[in-house]
Amino acid sequence: MSLIVQKYGGTSVGTTERIGNVADKVAGWRDKGNDVVVVVSAMSGETNRLIGLASDITDKPSPREMDVLVSTGEQVTIALLCMALEQRGYPARSYTGSQVHILTDSSFSKARILDIDNQNVQKDLSAGRVVVVAGFQGVDEHGSITTLGRGGSDTTAVALAAALKADECQIYTDVDGVYTTDPRVVSDARRLNKITFEEMLEMASLGSKVLQIRAVEFAGKYNVPLRVLSSFEEGEGTLISYEDEEMEDALISGIAFNRDEAKLTILGVPDQPGVAHKILGPISEANVEVDMIVQNIAEDSTTDFTFTVHRNDYDKALDILKQSADELGAREVNGDNKIIKISLVGVGMRSHAGIASKMFETLAGEGINIRMISTSEIKISVVVDEKYLELGVRALHEAFELEKSPQ
Amino acid sequence: MSLIVQKYGGTSVGTTERIGNVADKVAGWRDKGNDVVVVVSAMSGETNRLIGLASDITDKPSPREMDVLVSTGEQVTIALLCMALEQRGYPARSYTGSQVHILTDSSFSKARILDIDNQNVQKDLSAGRVVVVAGFQGVDEHGSITTLGRGGSDTTAVALAAALKADECQIYTDVDGVYTTDPRVVSDARRLNKITFEEMLEMASLGSKVLQIRAVEFAGKYNVPLRVLSSFEEGEGTLISYEDEEMEDALISGIAFNRDEAKLTILGVPDQPGVAHKILGPISEANVEVDMIVQNIAEDSTTDFTFTVHRNDYDKALDILKQSADELGAREVNGDNKIIKISLVGVGMRSHAGIASKMFETLAGEGINIRMISTSEIKISVVVDEKYLELGVRALHEAFELEKSPQ
Repeated sequence: MSLIVQKYGGTSVGTTERIGNVADKVAGWRDKGNDVVVVVSAMSGETNRLIGLASDITDKPSPREMDVLVSTGEQVTIALLCMALEQRGYPARSYTGSQVHILTDSSFSKARILDIDNQNVQKDLSAGRVVVVAGFQGVDEHGSITTLGRGGSDTTAVALAAALKADECQIYTDVDGVYTTDPRVVSDARRLNKITFEEMLEMASLGSKVLQIRAVEFAGKYNVPLRVLSSFEEGEGTLISYEDEEMEDALISGIAFNRDEAKLTILGVPDQPGVAHKILGPISEANVEVDMIVQNIAEDSTTDFTFTVHRNDYDKALDILKQSADELGAREVNGDNKIIKISLVGVGMRSHAGIASKMFETLAGEGINIRMISTSEIKISVVVDEKYLELGVRALHEAFELEKSPQ
Repeated sequence: MSLIVQKYGGTSVGTTERIGNVADKVAGWRDKGNDVVVVVSAMSGETNRLIGLASDITDKPSPREMDVLVSTGEQVTIALLCMALEQRGYPARSYTGSQVHILTDSSFSKARILDIDNQNVQKDLSAGRVVVVAGFQGVDEHGSITTLGRGGSDTTAVALAAALKADECQIYTDVDGVYTTDPRVVSDARRLNKITFEEMLEMASLGSKVLQIRAVEFAGKYNVPLRVLSSFEEGEGTLISYEDEEMEDALISGIAFNRDEAKLTILGVPDQPGVAHKILGPISEANVEVDMIVQNIAEDSTTDFTFTVHRNDYDKALDILKQSADELGAREVNGDNKIIKISLVGVGMRSHAGIASKMFETLAGEGINIRMISTSEIKISVVVDEKYLELGVRALHEAFELEKSPQ
């Protein structure tokens, strides 16, 4: 007998009929002898309806009251799912975040979980009940309702799984797993049976939006095996866990990409200690997030400095950089907001040489000019002109034979 | 400076625009230097929408989960009202029943308030905040959400006013006060400035459905002055309090009536101790509520026994009564479900004789046959054929000059 924490998102519980389907799924896991804790989101559309009511009233809703408002969305779902389970003969009990009790800090709308007291949940599980918990919400030390931010139900599920020492945390969603790359770009992209937490983090942050990145971090930190699977189709989904001996022997797990990149370059900056901070400090103070950073020392003891930002922040970042260039006595500032990023991700890189050169060779073979390169232990990212996105991803997917299962 | 508890019902907060109007009203009371606690219901239609979702899923929803579900309705309103207040520059803080904390028993969907811990509310009032509380809900000793039953927001307001020792509890509704009788029946029915708790209880239980009867009882018990007034029009409304010297010097405060009555008679019951219990016991065991009861001893030492029930219970009560008649050896059972009840209510009756005879004379003058009479200290009720309702009420309203303000 296993203890399983399951999370069903807004689409999976979007109608009362679908809530009935979720109850059937949960019942199936109970019938196999498992203890089940279910975390649910608000019915799809409900959170937006509530936000709409608030915006009818004010442009600047109080964050505390906004959390009181939107947290009702999940509360509706937990009650309905318990009714559906009991109607099928499965005793169930619902809990709001406050009732569990999921203690968070007081950062309304983006609270972080500090502690989970799962005594009530444990008691109900022992009594043979399915426990249904409202995702995305908690309570602060003053008893105020908090929310973890949009999509935070994944985090609730993982945190509960960690606190309960669950055997597996299953995230049900509208895709049936994690793919080698976006199937809309590469038609023979393949579902991965397994992937490591580290790979998933690199995939997620680079645009494969299957799971909340905080949930993956949390799962990795507390070593909670995480499975992504479809609410609507049968299947094993993708298991996200630590690398083990059974792990597929792949060099590359997947190809992530990001369409909304822009790059900025400051040329001929007199080289001196602290120059990176002088350039990037004002950018970060303006709340612009910097992704890749590359610095070259030129022969005349000046330095060239290039970094990428989200395309929405391009104009703002360019203005700031021009001002810094004046102050630092730099020669020139330029930028390009028609670029994208392609990344190969795989723990296999650690033990295999030659992957980077195969990547560069493949792109060169297609006539794709690389504008920027950045590498980490399990990832190689390149920046190229945006027109090459599909061509580059497809060429790399084929070159590394990702459509085939390893062994 | 006074402490005022206000309650706004579902119609008063039925749209975001109306919630804005409520915020304006509350702001007006704050501007006059009052501390204000506001109790709100769910936006009109919302509770029914939630019940509809539940009935899509099951015919027999768990009462606990039903309360989790419907309590979200008021939670939405408290958040929106706080936003509206803060947008107008009035600091505000919302509380669910559980957050206040309004401790109830565990009778889901019809819980009774056991205790109110108002420390948080007091702290917010001292800090100059408007406190907005979700009506109709509480929390039991296990931390489960409970509801007080439909319309229970009035009870929340009164209970909070009692716990906070408020100067007045104002119930905002869609009528502008308590009237001498239903204005749809008597066009010159007059709004009462004041009425006593006892009169209000008699009026409410007899069909003037302005206020929840439990809320009036509660207010009377804890001596909380209660004011009924309109959300939509200006005006003083009607103050419900204990009799005082300033109280209007009226003989009669109002005329209540009830359309849905039925009467049952058992004739020729051999008179013996306990006969009333033998007749009414089985009726009450069948959950049929009995209103008026009249017993006459006939000359042959048998007794005749008449009582009234709600018209919906007529057939059930008649069946039970026929069975009892057989067992008791009664001569006959008959009934009539085309009757109504008219009641004069007024604390003035206590000190004035002749009111009953004036009532009977007035009805006789219109050719209305009285079928049954029952009196209490502050009420005289008569049962008449249903066709005489309008005629009887109008004649009595005129005879007692209720359209005129006393003095």
